[in-house]
Amino acid sequence: MRLSFEKEQLLVAMNIVSRAISGKTTNPILECILFDAGKESIRLIANDDLEIGIETEVAGNILEPGKVAIDSRLIIDIVRKLEKNEEPIFIESDQNNHVLVKCGKAKFNIQGHDGEKFTYLPSITKEKYIKMTQLSLKEVIRQTIFSVSTSESNKILTGEYLTVHENIARFTTIDGYRLSIRNIMLKDNYPDSKAVIPAKSMSEISRIISGDNEKDIYIYFHANYVLFEFDSTTVVARTIEGEYMNVEKMYSSDYKTKLFINRQKLLNAIDSSTTLIKENDHVPIVFHIKDANLLIRAKSVFGEMDFELDAIKTGEDLKIAFNPKYVLDALRAIEEEEVTLYFTSARNPVFIRDADSNYIYSIFPVNFIE
Amino acid sequence: MRLSFEKEQLLVAMNIVSRAISGKTTNPILECILFDAGKESIRLIANDDLEIGIETEVAGNILEPGKVAIDSRLIIDIVRKLEKNEEPIFIESDQNNHVLVKCGKAKFNIQGHDGEKFTYLPSITKEKYIKMTQLSLKEVIRQTIFSVSTSESNKILTGEYLTVHENIARFTTIDGYRLSIRNIMLKDNYPDSKAVIPAKSMSEISRIISGDNEKDIYIYFHANYVLFEFDSTTVVARTIEGEYMNVEKMYSSDYKTKLFINRQKLLNAIDSSTTLIKENDHVPIVFHIKDANLLIRAKSVFGEMDFELDAIKTGEDLKIAFNPKYVLDALRAIEEEEVTLYFTSARNPVFIRDADSNYIYSIFPVNFIE
Repeated sequence: MRLSFEKEQLLVAMNIVSRAISGKTTNPILECILFDAGKESIRLIANDDLEIGIETEVAGNILEPGKVAIDSRLIIDIVRKLEKNEEPIFIESDQNNHVLVKCGKAKFNIQGHDGEKFTYLPSITKEKYIKMTQLSLKEVIRQTIFSVSTSESNKILTGEYLTVHENIARFTTIDGYRLSIRNIMLKDNYPDSKAVIPAKSMSEISRIISGDNEKDIYIYFHANYVLFEFDSTTVVARTIEGEYMNVEKMYSSDYKTKLFINRQKLLNAIDSSTTLIKENDHVPIVFHIKDANLLIRAKSVFGEMDFELDAIKTGEDLKIAFNPKYVLDALRAIEEEEVTLYFTSARNPVFIRDADSNYIYSIFPVNFIE
Repeated sequence: MRLSFEKEQLLVAMNIVSRAISGKTTNPILECILFDAGKESIRLIANDDLEIGIETEVAGNILEPGKVAIDSRLIIDIVRKLEKNEEPIFIESDQNNHVLVKCGKAKFNIQGHDGEKFTYLPSITKEKYIKMTQLSLKEVIRQTIFSVSTSESNKILTGEYLTVHENIARFTTIDGYRLSIRNIMLKDNYPDSKAVIPAKSMSEISRIISGDNEKDIYIYFHANYVLFEFDSTTVVARTIEGEYMNVEKMYSSDYKTKLFINRQKLLNAIDSSTTLIKENDHVPIVFHIKDANLLIRAKSVFGEMDFELDAIKTGEDLKIAFNPKYVLDALRAIEEEEVTLYFTSARNPVFIRDADSNYIYSIFPVNFIE
């Protein structure tokens, strides 16, 4: 195999596919990027053989077709360090998979691996699908991924639940303490579909798609996989088997106290409490809702905080306590200037949602001592 | 004590003095900033009671003089989090050292410590001194500190050696494998002085001085301390006792091979080798100097690199090997576009220096197998 590349294009492509490399494997070929050059195109592929595989096409000159698998970290490091050198990069391999990387007067000899031993991405029939902008997908992942469960005791909750009904794609995550739901309106109607996609795969996808509102991404649904197709890249993510929780049952539109408040001010007040409460302290913040006033109170070994905020309240007064991090996560995922919080009692979850239910964030309260 | 501040000014001042807090102490008062308000000025002081103490004056309203010591991390955190709040910050303490921090509708109650138990900076008679720009000092610290010894077996080498003769301030560091010397030309002549200042103190000073060429810093020499005075800040650093190595003996102007080469190209070539050589691998890079050519060769379990560079050579051909990190550190500390390297043999240190000896970087070679 003999190829030449513009460094920047090669780096971008390698950085995309390297997202599929977990770094936790002891099998060297799983730490490799496959360079696969046919007569007309060069494909880079990486694959953790388990959860995620990524393939992308990269521009370059094919001086001699062929394939070889090269350690991802090493080849990315070498190409990155040669960045200041303005000449093209040549990557060549022989029948023993010796790899020569050349750039100007710099030469690197490294040992590659047999490309024939590399596992390609599973081939997926492209039937059921949806289309959305890359920006929408990137945003919705950021706005929901934080409440995916990290506990392996209920595997299905470690994924994002994606459901499609007519022109709505819904993204749901639940970690046992809180629930995040985002509805994305699609341009077309689609048949019903659903899939639970591991959080890690979603997070890697959100890193490699662009934040461009003009660029689309296609999501194909298959029994065991979801396939994402965008630009010249394909990502295949294995889905998590099993039935997801029945989310509809978890919320009602009843409430006894409703609070309309400036989101940024509420966020700043709770964020201030984190000077006294560290993430794993299990110290709550207490909301004292009284008249047109919300008093946020925090108390720890380091001291006490009282933070008063103006709010528009409907319904009963209430005292309720939360893990501050959970409230912060939800408030940071919302863009609207004002938010509405719905409470039923100090033992029931709060719901933060907009009028059209484009988003629903729900957080279970914690016990507190006054 | 009752004081009020503009947040930004208070934060800057707290960040400056907090550089004296080591974080490694079990004595709570050593983790505190002393707020000391007389009738006319407010001073903040922090002191590790061992190596470094910092005092700075901060603008603010003195509603009631007094003093209290407040945990540095906590008060900086609280003030930083209140940043988006546009009102002034009030800091008050009572006779029990309870501290109240107020900003708009936010209130923090924290426990302070008795200001009377706080150790002030030692008072130093200001006699022998030098003056230089803050920019010069910041630069010279960056350009020499990397070769300070980190081994406690020879305590004196863990400091920077500052000597003054006439209008030259010389900064020297030696770690046993290499030597860095920088001469700074001063505007005036001064009496001879010398001091060995711990690397940590120098590093903290370089962080809090500005990179401003218009602003001066005064350095006062005293038997056991060096005092740095700039803007409204005073830093007292304890010096390391003992006699520093006789540096003059370590270098001569003899050489058998002289290499004149583009600094950035040499740096890039050696930096490229770090893709194959990790910092603690103890794998050298080999310089093959032959005719008008420098070939840099690296070989490790990951592969081999050959990097050719044009150079102007005077004298004999030579093969010599180095720890790549040491050569990189020196090359990064030099601004000049071209550098000259002087070699005597494969067993003697290389000297990288300019014609006027404004800088001298010397690095011991390592053994190598071809």
